[in-house]
Amino acid sequence: MNKKINIGLIGLGTVGQGVVKVLSKFDNIDIITCAVKNLNKKRQVEVKNLTTDVYEVVNNPDVDIVVEVAGGVGVKDALMCAIKNKKHIVTANKELLARYGAELFDEARNNSTSILYEAAVAGGIPIVQPIKTSLKANDFDCVAGILNGTTNYILTKMEEENLSYEECLKKAQELGYAETDPTNDVEGYDAMYKIAILANIVFNRRIDVSNIYCEGITKISPFDIKSADELGYKIKLIAQAKKVDKTPDTLDIRVHPMLVDKNQAISEIRNATNAVLLSGFPVGKLMSTGGGAGEFPTSSSVVGDILQIVSEISNKDTILPMQVCHHDKFAYQIDINKTTNSYYLRLEAKNKLGIIGQIGLACSKYGINLSSILQKGTNENGSATIIVVTEMCLEDNINKMIQVLEESNDIKVVNKIRVM
Amino acid sequence: MNKKINIGLIGLGTVGQGVVKVLSKFDNIDIITCAVKNLNKKRQVEVKNLTTDVYEVVNNPDVDIVVEVAGGVGVKDALMCAIKNKKHIVTANKELLARYGAELFDEARNNSTSILYEAAVAGGIPIVQPIKTSLKANDFDCVAGILNGTTNYILTKMEEENLSYEECLKKAQELGYAETDPTNDVEGYDAMYKIAILANIVFNRRIDVSNIYCEGITKISPFDIKSADELGYKIKLIAQAKKVDKTPDTLDIRVHPMLVDKNQAISEIRNATNAVLLSGFPVGKLMSTGGGAGEFPTSSSVVGDILQIVSEISNKDTILPMQVCHHDKFAYQIDINKTTNSYYLRLEAKNKLGIIGQIGLACSKYGINLSSILQKGTNENGSATIIVVTEMCLEDNINKMIQVLEESNDIKVVNKIRVM
Repeated sequence: MNKKINIGLIGLGTVGQGVVKVLSKFDNIDIITCAVKNLNKKRQVEVKNLTTDVYEVVNNPDVDIVVEVAGGVGVKDALMCAIKNKKHIVTANKELLARYGAELFDEARNNSTSILYEAAVAGGIPIVQPIKTSLKANDFDCVAGILNGTTNYILTKMEEENLSYEECLKKAQELGYAETDPTNDVEGYDAMYKIAILANIVFNRRIDVSNIYCEGITKISPFDIKSADELGYKIKLIAQAKKVDKTPDTLDIRVHPMLVDKNQAISEIRNATNAVLLSGFPVGKLMSTGGGAGEFPTSSSVVGDILQIVSEISNKDTILPMQVCHHDKFAYQIDINKTTNSYYLRLEAKNKLGIIGQIGLACSKYGINLSSILQKGTNENGSATIIVVTEMCLEDNINKMIQVLEESNDIKVVNKIRVM
Repeated sequence: MNKKINIGLIGLGTVGQGVVKVLSKFDNIDIITCAVKNLNKKRQVEVKNLTTDVYEVVNNPDVDIVVEVAGGVGVKDALMCAIKNKKHIVTANKELLARYGAELFDEARNNSTSILYEAAVAGGIPIVQPIKTSLKANDFDCVAGILNGTTNYILTKMEEENLSYEECLKKAQELGYAETDPTNDVEGYDAMYKIAILANIVFNRRIDVSNIYCEGITKISPFDIKSADELGYKIKLIAQAKKVDKTPDTLDIRVHPMLVDKNQAISEIRNATNAVLLSGFPVGKLMSTGGGAGEFPTSSSVVGDILQIVSEISNKDTILPMQVCHHDKFAYQIDINKTTNSYYLRLEAKNKLGIIGQIGLACSKYGINLSSILQKGTNENGSATIIVVTEMCLEDNINKMIQVLEESNDIKVVNKIRVM
């Protein structure tokens, strides 16, 4: 349990620095060396033993886990070497896994080491591990999703602000969502690597990336987005892999823009958010959404993978060590009267002068502000129905305010519902 | 790897029968005994050694894993006995875990056995295990969700068909979504047990169920739903647990109906679907949705848990055995031209008679039906823009059809986008 685990890091860019920050609270895990391109670059974090030679990391006998967040396929030979040195691997490198995963996984099997890669697909969303574990009982028909945040951001801006593709790409570049050369994102290649990795584990088959049909978003115009809107659709860049017959031996895998029915929840996935859809038996349909890229969502998955390997190699006598429940301390649960909420109130009031004034007076007595008020005509019995939505206030205060209203005998509070 | 694992089942109702069906394809797992209330009830599946004595299951020395899908707190003593007998437990029993989880988990720790319970919260959605593993690096502020399918079904029907609570409850009962005595669902108790379990693992604290504020949906009227709609909200039964300060020592946990902004994706969760929201650092915001109850979604999670215990006790020499990649076979990936899709086409046509006829002719030549056609006035250059959405057809055929249109010199196909 208390053995220190040593990490060798490859890459100290945005994601690498996020990993260093998040790992800092785990006392039993040390980053003992890190390979970078440029030793002198200014960074937000400090790491011991920086080197420009990646082999110093993968050949370091004290390293237990190699964490690769550099990206690109150039790192392949170094990772093969790390595996031969019996190191476990955690990687966020989608291109590497999509192109050379088979070789790496074979080598890992031969050396009884793990390769975990939750961060390679859909950033912070837990999807790789659930497919391999909790959902293992399923036969899947289809996996699909919005797997690239940059293009989803561009399409969202085009829709919301009626701007051209070029203008929105520029915005995305200014915000750091898109790179100077945006090809990898906007032509769909990034999503293509990710759907290859997902298809691989969902259908348990090797995937040839060069056989994936791939079409980006550069030809989508605001006019298409508006026309689609009129017909009840939004336009999203969808990556999908599905069975053609009933077996996973033949698959239809592709990345291209699609019109998505507005009644489908995936049409509501905006900006840089990612979404993954799964459909299978017995589970039916699942959707998971969350941050698909960036320093922190990606670090969540990288560190989650590290913690799993650490728990396994530190607790060899326990099965499923991370599943053991260790919550011995009770939480103090606050009373509903001490909570702060926004409220919807349905009032039934006598149809006479000064009712709105009475409501206003009662509210101000307890410091309650209204964000909406809606009088809905008069009822058969001559009373008026008034709907009120408050800003945030203490439950205790709204109840006192309601008591004041009801004591007037002019107003009855028919329903109180909290606002999320 | 090839050791047979023996299951002792407790409960053979809807979920129990689902588990038997789903487990049937796993040759290395046998259900060797099952405790039921009524030996003679007609069932869709056959199980060896039925007994009405639950202690015959938990004391059976050949049983490796006790799978409890009976429900209710009456089974507690039997499960404590199973744990003392060193059996691993897989359970879907939310009330039991919410009320007596602490005792059960303590006993399991003392006996080095596992209790897995993915199915106890949100049915088929993988959420318990991701919180404990992939998301372990996070500090969470809030967990919330739609955790009861019955009440979400009733609220959806009230909204869509403008029916009273009572009418929709009756519908839900007819469809088997609600029980004859619906108290447990409609008063929010089922959601309360589930949020207690989630708060427990998200905040790593014990939760006292009796301190959870709980309000059901019986007072919601179609009038409230309509008024909320006018203000931009839907009404959902939300269970939530959040930190009050920055520590998990003090929590605000409750279940009650809420107005949810229509721009939030959770407002689109309809019928019996469940949704879980998580918010924390570093991951940010996550949402997972899927089937929350019923024979098959629940079986997905129960069998997923069983497979994890089986893989751990069968592969003691491998770390994270379920994460090992064994996909040696390539998939055959079909060509995009052989796929079937619905298409959005943007056409620019000369403004002359017979254009729509030409389109119709070209479509019928390749057996393509149109589901929408939208002429969008004439352009500055005198041409007309026509938007067409086809029904499903072969990619090969749509391309041939496009070729025919363009050969006429009267029509240009400006864009082709597939429909999801």
